Amino acid sequence: MSHFGDIKPPEGLMSMNLRIEQALEQQFSRVHTAGSPPRLMAAMRHAVFPGGARIRPQLCLAVATACGDDASALSNAAAISIELLHCASLVHDDMPCFDDADIRRGLPTVHKQFGEPLALLAGDALIILAYQALAQAGTRWPQRLAPLLQIVCEGTGAPEGIVAGQAWECEPKVALSQYQRAKTGALFVASTCAGAIAAGVDPQPWRRLGDCLGEAYQVADDIRDVMGQALAIGKPQGQDAHHGRPSSAADLGLVGAVNYFRELMQAAIDSVPACPARTAMQKLVLAESERLLPQHAREQIARGVMEPGLA
Amino acid sequence: MSHFGDIKPPEGLMSMNLRIEQALEQQFSRVHTAGSPPRLMAAMRHAVFPGGARIRPQLCLAVATACGDDASALSNAAAISIELLHCASLVHDDMPCFDDADIRRGLPTVHKQFGEPLALLAGDALIILAYQALAQAGTRWPQRLAPLLQIVCEGTGAPEGIVAGQAWECEPKVALSQYQRAKTGALFVASTCAGAIAAGVDPQPWRRLGDCLGEAYQVADDIRDVMGQALAIGKPQGQDAHHGRPSSAADLGLVGAVNYFRELMQAAIDSVPACPARTAMQKLVLAESERLLPQHAREQIARGVMEPGLA
Repeated sequence: MSHFGDIKPPEGLMSMNLRIEQALEQQFSRVHTAGSPPRLMAAMRHAVFPGGARIRPQLCLAVATACGDDASALSNAAAISIELLHCASLVHDDMPCFDDADIRRGLPTVHKQFGEPLALLAGDALIILAYQALAQAGTRWPQRLAPLLQIVCEGTGAPEGIVAGQAWECEPKVALSQYQRAKTGALFVASTCAGAIAAGVDPQPWRRLGDCLGEAYQVADDIRDVMGQALAIGKPQGQDAHHGRPSSAADLGLVGAVNYFRELMQAAIDSVPACPARTAMQKLVLAESERLLPQHAREQIARGVMEPGLA
Repeated sequence: MSHFGDIKPPEGLMSMNLRIEQALEQQFSRVHTAGSPPRLMAAMRHAVFPGGARIRPQLCLAVATACGDDASALSNAAAISIELLHCASLVHDDMPCFDDADIRRGLPTVHKQFGEPLALLAGDALIILAYQALAQAGTRWPQRLAPLLQIVCEGTGAPEGIVAGQAWECEPKVALSQYQRAKTGALFVASTCAGAIAAGVDPQPWRRLGDCLGEAYQVADDIRDVMGQALAIGKPQGQDAHHGRPSSAADLGLVGAVNYFRELMQAAIDSVPACPARTAMQKLVLAESERLLPQHAREQIARGVMEPGLA
């Protein structure tokens, strides 16, 4: 599942996707018992399958692979815990008290399909499921579990994780960079660092990659939000302006935002630490760059075709 | 803070309360940084302070103490993680799509005070904070972290934790015992077992104590819900009937429910495994029994004074 169907994922990404889907299915099968409330389980599945681009778990597994991946069950758990937390945040973000979104990935949002109470609970249960995945896999690698948990919590909770990022929307004043770093960047940092930790490697050198990719992802999202009509992104365009959210496309203009996106992706590529798989990792980042904001869209913006669309 | 101000807590409970409040404050101070969204932090604090009876963390620490408590930072983390998860569930349960409650513990509920978006996020952030507490303390006792996490997840998530319990309210059919076990019992079981695990002891013998206390607590809650006017419990009475929730007081009648409560508390006392502090632990359970449903209330019900109140 890619936002841009015409771009083929690079070699290796397909097998990673398969790993992620299988690990997610396996995690669900562990908690989907005869004694579980059927509608809750259905709402949880609806939030996770079919997935979006699965960018974060792919990033996590890519880093784990670059670091040797000597504990693949643990890196799988790290990857899916981050995806489950991401899905949980989408379910809650879509609810009427936030974005009030009817559609997500071309399907009804969880509260539209199952009602608000189950959407609220499905989000909660997905957060817990994420930690459950880590706990189960962590039994075999106890020394890696605590740092893994900490990095995942850091990416999701207070003071600077995605929940805090969303909470900045409820504050009278917020700096754009602080908002974006928390709302998107933190979980990307968690993704790269968790991949390293799961493979028993120091996560620090991988932090910058997550940071740059996270910000680039947010900038691309802001650009696509404004360009909505030109690129199919499966959600109504112009939501940021509609909800009064900070947006780099509004701050810098489309051309400025595209330039900033290019700088961030270059910084991401440069940041990949020395490791046997450095070149492969850099290629993957390049492919991600194309997926986030295809060359043809960038050129279109450079030609000024889209500029008048900015209100 | 006790539901029944005239009952003095037994020796040892006061110091446990202090330990719990201090550990909670310390955990908040770790995430309350200059970079955290101030209103989110305020909403999270509002959900946790001042607390209710703190029954679950007390139970957790009591079991840890009975088991030797050789890792007090870890048992503190276990105790507060359970309390934070409990508080998170109250915040979400109170929201308009569930109970739509205005008042909790005599104060406005989180969504009444801070609005729905921040209530939703505060609940999420409290769930994550709970795991953060375990991760931080778990660094020193890595072998105990995975089982501790698993028992806490079991008590809160799908298929049989408190989130699943709440989700049973969204199903067309549910068995009373299954609903109550998930909605209340699971977190009590997690409390006793987590106390044992934090102290490096096999949790299995402590499971039944949590099970009995959890069910007794739910039965007492059902009784108090019906008796609302006679006993001040800080929330509107008769909510169960109003929301069409399963209730043992409705199923068994008040007198039957009180008898069942007595049986459960006796079973709880009998279940305390052999350990040096067995007698002290049994006294604590007895005190808890009095706190949950004071003798004078039981006598009142036995005399049939309350019976006509049942519609």
